[in-house]
Amino acid sequence: MSAPQEEAALWWATAVSHIEPGSIELRDRPVQELIGTTSLVDVIWLLLRGDLPTSRQSALLEAALVAGVDHGPQAPSIAAARMAATCGIGLNNAVATGVNMLGDTHGGAGQQCVEMLADVRTRHSEGLTWPGAARKVMADWQSRSRYLPGFGHRFHPVDPRRDPLLNLVQEAVADGVVDGEYLKAALAVEEALRVRRAGARPVPMNIDGATAVIYAELGFPAPLARGLFVLSRSVGVLAHAWEETGQGRRNKGPLPRSILPARLTAPQEI
Amino acid sequence: MSAPQEEAALWWATAVSHIEPGSIELRDRPVQELIGTTSLVDVIWLLLRGDLPTSRQSALLEAALVAGVDHGPQAPSIAAARMAATCGIGLNNAVATGVNMLGDTHGGAGQQCVEMLADVRTRHSEGLTWPGAARKVMADWQSRSRYLPGFGHRFHPVDPRRDPLLNLVQEAVADGVVDGEYLKAALAVEEALRVRRAGARPVPMNIDGATAVIYAELGFPAPLARGLFVLSRSVGVLAHAWEETGQGRRNKGPLPRSILPARLTAPQEI
Amino acid sequence: MSAPQEEAALWWATAVSHIEPGSIELRDRPVQELIGTTSLVDVIWLLLRGDLPTSRQSALLEAALVAGVDHGPQAPSIAAARMAATCGIGLNNAVATGVNMLGDTHGGAGQQCVEMLADVRTRHSEGLTWPGAARKVMADWQSRSRYLPGFGHRFHPVDPRRDPLLNLVQEAVADGVVDGEYLKAALAVEEALRVRRAGARPVPMNIDGATAVIYAELGFPAPLARGLFVLSRSVGVLAHAWEETGQGRRNKGPLPRSILPARLTAPQEI
Amino acid sequence: MSAPQEEAALWWATAVSHIEPGSIELRDRPVQELIGTTSLVDVIWLLLRGDLPTSRQSALLEAALVAGVDHGPQAPSIAAARMAATCGIGLNNAVATGVNMLGDTHGGAGQQCVEMLADVRTRHSEGLTWPGAARKVMADWQSRSRYLPGFGHRFHPVDPRRDPLLNLVQEAVADGVVDGEYLKAALAVEEALRVRRAGARPVPMNIDGATAVIYAELGFPAPLARGLFVLSRSVGVLAHAWEETGQGRRNKGPLPRSILPARLTAPQEI
Repeated sequence: MSAPQEEAALWWATAVSHIEPGSIELRDRPVQELIGTTSLVDVIWLLLRGDLPTSRQSALLEAALVAGVDHGPQAPSIAAARMAATCGIGLNNAVATGVNMLGDTHGGAGQQCVEMLADVRTRHSEGLTWPGAARKVMADWQSRSRYLPGFGHRFHPVDPRRDPLLNLVQEAVADGVVDGEYLKAALAVEEALRVRRAGARPVPMNIDGATAVIYAELGFPAPLARGLFVLSRSVGVLAHAWEETGQGRRNKGPLPRSILPARLTAPQEI
Repeated sequence: MSAPQEEAALWWATAVSHIEPGSIELRDRPVQELIGTTSLVDVIWLLLRGDLPTSRQSALLEAALVAGVDHGPQAPSIAAARMAATCGIGLNNAVATGVNMLGDTHGGAGQQCVEMLADVRTRHSEGLTWPGAARKVMADWQSRSRYLPGFGHRFHPVDPRRDPLLNLVQEAVADGVVDGEYLKAALAVEEALRVRRAGARPVPMNIDGATAVIYAELGFPAPLARGLFVLSRSVGVLAHAWEETGQGRRNKGPLPRSILPARLTAPQEI
Repeated sequence: MSAPQEEAALWWATAVSHIEPGSIELRDRPVQELIGTTSLVDVIWLLLRGDLPTSRQSALLEAALVAGVDHGPQAPSIAAARMAATCGIGLNNAVATGVNMLGDTHGGAGQQCVEMLADVRTRHSEGLTWPGAARKVMADWQSRSRYLPGFGHRFHPVDPRRDPLLNLVQEAVADGVVDGEYLKAALAVEEALRVRRAGARPVPMNIDGATAVIYAELGFPAPLARGLFVLSRSVGVLAHAWEETGQGRRNKGPLPRSILPARLTAPQEI
Repeated sequence: MSAPQEEAALWWATAVSHIEPGSIELRDRPVQELIGTTSLVDVIWLLLRGDLPTSRQSALLEAALVAGVDHGPQAPSIAAARMAATCGIGLNNAVATGVNMLGDTHGGAGQQCVEMLADVRTRHSEGLTWPGAARKVMADWQSRSRYLPGFGHRFHPVDPRRDPLLNLVQEAVADGVVDGEYLKAALAVEEALRVRRAGARPVPMNIDGATAVIYAELGFPAPLARGLFVLSRSVGVLAHAWEETGQGRRNKGPLPRSILPARLTAPQEI
C-alpha cells in the first residue's frame, strides 16, 4: 500500500469488524460461525466488548434489555416515532427520530446512575460505610441537580420492573456471577432516600437505576448504559411506529384536531 | 372521562403496551412476567405481532438478526455514526444518525425483496412454473430499476451470510416450521440470474435477500424486513460509535487531514 | 499526489465549496467577499445553483421561504422538536428531529407539486389547452393517490399564504422576471378542482402549491422544493424548540399527564 | 372548553405562532403581512425573539448567518449528509443527518464561546481590567478543558471569516448599534492567547468566536448561538446533499472502494 492509502485505511481502522471481498469477520470471528449458533444478546456483548459472555452474564444482560423495550406513547420518543411514521418517511427514519430523543433526561439517566453508583462504590472502598458513602455521594449529586438519576418516577409510585431485575442480580451475586458491589451501592442510596423522605412520596429505584445496576455489575462503562438502553427501546419504538403506519393517519399531530394549542400571551423572555 | 379527554386518549390508543401507575403491560402481558423468562428476540416478535413465537420460529428470526449486525465503516451508516460520535453529541444521537441512513438503497432492499418474492409466489400460485414466475417478476422489476433487490453485492462475489441462513431455512422447511414458498421463489430468481448471466459476474443472493426469505417465511410484512434490519444493524452502529468514542478524535471527517477534497470545476447542472 | 490520494480526493470532489488552509471559497467566491455584502437568500441560491440571483428573483425566493417558516405545534415536526427539547439533547438534535419528519406527506408535497405542474406544462406544450392539460394530469395523479399535492388543506378552508404569494408571482410575470407557465398550470388545476367539486368543500392551492409555483418559476428542480422548505421550516422548528426549552418541562409527552393513551383491544393485524 | 380540553390546549401553548382555520399568526402578526415585506433574517429574529430587528441589527445577524453556511466535505456533518443522500432517503432526512451532528464540538463551540465571553464581561464589570478578566476566565475554562471555545482552528492558521465579521461589529459599535462589550472581551482573550503563546502556533478567533461576538452583542442567549449556526450550516448541508444526489452514487462510503479500513489488532479496552 502507498502511504496515503495506508493513512486512509488507518483513519478508519477498527477492531469491531473486518470486511474483505467474500469475508465478514466480527471481532475476528467469521460471521458464518455466529449465524445459527450465537444469540443476539451474545453478539451484542461480542461487538461491544470483543469476547463472548458466559450464559449467566448473557441472561442478566438479556433481562435488562427486555425490561426497557417500551413505555407507551406517553414517552416522547415513542410519540415522536409514531408521528414520524405518518409523515411519509421510511420506518428507519421513524425509528431514528425516536432514538434521537433518548437524551440525558430520557434514557441517559442510566448512564448517570452508573457514574453515581461508581462514586458510591469508590467512597465505600475508601472506608465509608455503605450508608455513609451513599449520603455523601447523594449530597454531591444533589448540589448539582435536583434529580438523582435512577431513582423515583414521575409516573410509577413503584416501578414494576425493579423487583424482578434486582432479584436476578441477587441470584447472580449468590452464584458468584457478579460481585454485587453496585447492587449494594444502589440499595444504600434507595435506603438513604427512604429514611430521608420518611412520610413523603417514596422514590424507589426505577428502570434506569435497576438496569444501571446490571450494566455496571457486568462491567459495562457508564456511556454504554445509555447505548444498551437505545438498543432495548428501539424495539418499542419500531413496534409503535409500525402500528401507527397501519392506522393510516397522515401528519398526525400531538392532539386530536378538535383541540388547538392555546395562545401564550406573555411574550417569551430570552 | 369527558368527551375531549376520551378523544385525546383514543388519538394515542395502542395495542402495543398499556401503562398505568404501577403497571406496565406489553401486549397485555405484565412486564414483570417477561423479565427473566422471555428472550429479547421473543419480545421483539411479541411487540411487533402480539403473540410469542415458537422456539423454532424464534431461532430463525434470531439468525437473521445476528447476520445483519455489522458491515464495517465502509457502510455509510456505520461511518456516519462514527463521525457523529466525535462531534460532541450523545451516543443515542450517534446511533440515530446511523439508523437514519438505512434507507431504500441501504437496508431497504430487504423490504423490496420481500415484495418481489411475494410477487413471484403469487405468479406461481396463479399457475406459472417457479422459473417462469421468477422470469416474469424479474422483467417487471427490471423495467422499473436496474437493481434486483436482494441479489448481488457491490463488494462480495459471494455473500458469506447466504449459505448459513438458507441452510437454516431449509431445515425449518424440512421440519414444517415454515412452508418454504418464499425460499423457492428466491432460489428461482437466483437460478434465473445465473442462467441469464452465464459467464458474467454472478449475482447470488445477498444478506438482504437471505434475510428477506426468513422474514417472509415467518410471516412478517415487507416493511418489517426493513424494520428488523434496523434493530439488527443498530448493534453494529452502536459498537462502532462506541469504539470511535474511545479513540478520542474530534470532528472526524471522512478522510485524513492530509487529503483535501478535490475541486470540481464543471459547474453543477441543476 | 499519489494515485490513491487523488482517488480519495476525487471521491469527495465538490463544486459547492473549496477549503484550503486560510481559504474558504463558496462556489469559487472567497467567503470574505460574501460576508456583509450578500444576503442570506442570495447565498442559498448561490450554493444551490452556482450563481447569484437578480434582486427580483431573490425577492420571490425570499417570500416563499418566509411563508413556510411555521405552522405551530399541531404540525408533527414542530411538536416532535418541542418534545425533543425536553429530553436532554442539544438544540441541533431537536432541530434535526423536526427536520427529519418533513417527509413525503409533511413538506414533500411541494416536490410532488412541482412534478405535477411540470407534467401539466408539458401536456400544454404538446397542444392541450390549459384546462385539458390540468384534467389529464389530475386524472393521472389521482389514479395513483387520492391526494393532489399542493391543493387543499386539512385545516384551512383558504390558506392565507396563497394570495400574497401568487400576487408576487403575477407581478414577477408582468415584469418579465419569470415566464408564468407554472403559475398558469397551477391556476388551471385549481380551477378544474373548483369546477369538479362545485358545492363541495373547496380545495384551493395551499402553501406547498403556492411555493411550488415560485420554486418552479425560478427554475429549481422538484426535489429542491422540499429542500428549500426544509430551510424555511427549520426557522420555526428552532423557535419552538427554544421556547419549549425555556418552559422547563422534562420528557414532555404528547398529552398532559392526566390523560392516558387508550388501550386498543383489537389485536393489530400485520 | 372543557377542563381536559383546556389542559391539553395549555400543554401545547405557545407564543411563537397561533393557527386557526384560515389564520396563521407568527408572533401575533398575520403571515400575509410578512410575506413580501419582511426579510428571512428579520423573520428569524421575529420568531426567536418576538419583535423585529432594526435594519442594522438585521445586517449584523445576516453577516453571521452567511459566514457559517459551509465548510466542505471535510466537516463530518457535510460528509454525513452527502453519504445519506446516496442511501435512498429524502433530502429532508439527509439534511437532518447533517444537522444532528452539529454538537458540542462541531457547532456547539459558539454557544460555549458566548458563555465564556459573558464570564469575561462579568469579571470586567466587577472591576478587573479586560486583560485580567480574560486571563482569569481562560484559566477557569482551561481547568475544565484544553480547548478554548471560539479560538484556534485545526485547519486554518487564520480564519478568513474573522476579519470581515469583526469589522462589521466595530462599525456597529461606532454607530451605537451594539455596545461592544463582547467584542472587547473576545479581543482580550485573543490578545492574551497571543502573548501567552508567543512564538508558538497562533490561535486567533475562529468562525465560532467571531459569530459568538455578533450573537452576544445582539442579545441572543448562548444556546441560540448554536441554534443560529444550525440555520446557517443547513444551507451548506442541503447544497452538498443535493450535489451528491446528482452524482448518482449508491451507498457512498467514506473512502473509495479500493481502500479498505485497516484491521485494528489491539483489542479495544472498555
